[in-house]
Amino acid sequence: MPGPDPDVAAARLAVRGALADLPAGVRVLVACSGGADSLALAAATAFVAPRQGWSAGAVVVDHRLRPGSDVAAARTARLCRHLGLEPVDVRAVDVAGGPAGTGAGGPEAAARAARYAALRGACEHHGAAAVLLGHTLDDQAETVLLGLARGSGARSLAGMPARRGPWRRPFLALRRSQTEQVCHAAGLDFERDPTNAADGPWRAADGSPLRRAAVRERALPALVDALGPGVVEALGRTSAQLTRDADLLDAQAAALLEQALVTGEPPEDQDDDAVVLDVAVLEAAHPALRTRALHAAALRAGATPGALAAVHIDTVDALVTAYHGQGPLTLPGPVSAARRCGTLAFGRP
Amino acid sequence: MPGPDPDVAAARLAVRGALADLPAGVRVLVACSGGADSLALAAATAFVAPRQGWSAGAVVVDHRLRPGSDVAAARTARLCRHLGLEPVDVRAVDVAGGPAGTGAGGPEAAARAARYAALRGACEHHGAAAVLLGHTLDDQAETVLLGLARGSGARSLAGMPARRGPWRRPFLALRRSQTEQVCHAAGLDFERDPTNAADGPWRAADGSPLRRAAVRERALPALVDALGPGVVEALGRTSAQLTRDADLLDAQAAALLEQALVTGEPPEDQDDDAVVLDVAVLEAAHPALRTRALHAAALRAGATPGALAAVHIDTVDALVTAYHGQGPLTLPGPVSAARRCGTLAFGRP
Repeated sequence: MPGPDPDVAAARLAVRGALADLPAGVRVLVACSGGADSLALAAATAFVAPRQGWSAGAVVVDHRLRPGSDVAAARTARLCRHLGLEPVDVRAVDVAGGPAGTGAGGPEAAARAARYAALRGACEHHGAAAVLLGHTLDDQAETVLLGLARGSGARSLAGMPARRGPWRRPFLALRRSQTEQVCHAAGLDFERDPTNAADGPWRAADGSPLRRAAVRERALPALVDALGPGVVEALGRTSAQLTRDADLLDAQAAALLEQALVTGEPPEDQDDDAVVLDVAVLEAAHPALRTRALHAAALRAGATPGALAAVHIDTVDALVTAYHGQGPLTLPGPVSAARRCGTLAFGRP
Repeated sequence: MPGPDPDVAAARLAVRGALADLPAGVRVLVACSGGADSLALAAATAFVAPRQGWSAGAVVVDHRLRPGSDVAAARTARLCRHLGLEPVDVRAVDVAGGPAGTGAGGPEAAARAARYAALRGACEHHGAAAVLLGHTLDDQAETVLLGLARGSGARSLAGMPARRGPWRRPFLALRRSQTEQVCHAAGLDFERDPTNAADGPWRAADGSPLRRAAVRERALPALVDALGPGVVEALGRTSAQLTRDADLLDAQAAALLEQALVTGEPPEDQDDDAVVLDVAVLEAAHPALRTRALHAAALRAGATPGALAAVHIDTVDALVTAYHGQGPLTLPGPVSAARRCGTLAFGRP
């Protein structure tokens, strides 16, 4: 008897490895969109789980953003049940703003928020130990390129973690083409989600195609064309290395922030959320840590995470390293940053 | 009287800022290829230098890779003299392998090696305090993308430094289009180097277009198309931030390496270049530092810098963190890495 297809074996090994710490008897849920990656994940999990003593179900999120999405979701749920997953929970969600999306992130971010909320709800409802997500190495490479476009350093390039909270991503080292092969080998007819295509119906507010879709269909192929097929693996490696770097630097910056904090009774004109730092401690620190500590201090004082950018931190840093009497700054939140008497104070403006 | 064109002003300010630490009386040399970036740098330097008391000359390297390259070099030299630069030194070089290039890096790397050797020679010959290079923000963005393709972490993404040894790059924050505008404003007819074009005459050994040219003409435009024009600045910011991170992490890793070194008389079967490390010290270190220290240790024992890759370091790291009796490894050099009696020893195989 021949062994399984190599990609099928790789997928099963990946699931087993990603869940190796889970004891027998727990339940896991596969988040299944009907695409090749998550259907392959469903198939591999359905095979591995009974052998490890885990109970495995699935969650199918119906984003209700195109006609017939309910039919597609029901079809995906049938495939999951056919694979032996149980329970299979179909959750219909309302995406803020519909296909047009709302907010700074546009339709992709709104759909993502609705999807993760639904998955989290299913996880709690079914008492699952983990929710498995089908992101592949190709998705990771796209994420790194999207992070590059933000230009906000190692953390924004660090990509998706293999594990965080309830989420686990067993397929981060597998290529998308491998998940397609797993589906072929299992006779699973996967869906190509039209909302994912760069020429698909979704558009950002300015009419441009969706960013991730554009990266997937144009930018990444152009990079592969220019630099060779190894670039996808290289982006994945880069992501893993920068995650490691960012973890260490963030920890060191947190220690620096604690060391720089001026404690004691705040002056009467300061609010309770004020964060007051000793300029001398900051000055003596390495810029890689100082800028991170200043970022963390601004957030602690109430700055808006998504809006606080590297350019803001650079102006705050100038209050420490290039002070020539600048007045207070206002950061997104709003939060003020002001230098006074050898301290740098963040607080309400 | 109106002030100068804003791009001309920006170019002059960039040169003044990049050389602000130089005392009056020193000589600087502009490396001028005849392209827009280095001609703009020649023009800005010719304007700024006499006002700061510096003497400014130029070096033009003739790579002799296409017919008429000597004529083009002589023309560029005339333009430099016309701008008031003195001396203007034309240096003809032999690129190893000619247009076909040799070695792992192919023709681009061979031309680069010949160019930097000639520039260094001119710097010494003329007793210059610095050699100014015309690299722009666009070049930096391309360098970051090329580094991504290597996938070897923060340092490979860190791009070109604004200053290292004799080299200074005043234009790393200017766009290429700004340098073209500086040339237009000064009536300087710049050259579009045909060797730089993706459809140009140079080919890598496998017939594919040159990597940097392909990144410039295809990959970067596709990224801009997918992510917006801000991606070039974002790549530059990323580069600056990762340089800062890499500087700190490399320094911490060097300290870890010193701490882990087992000193004393080497056993008789070890060579003098052997580097012996204490596994317990390595085990206790953060992986971001341990992997860097292992990389530095392998280099110290004689491993080949360009050939030693992240995948090699991962297998060495497994000797520390996942040891189950693995035998010695052979790294490019060749250098062996072996675990024995609580130590990790690098040496001749």
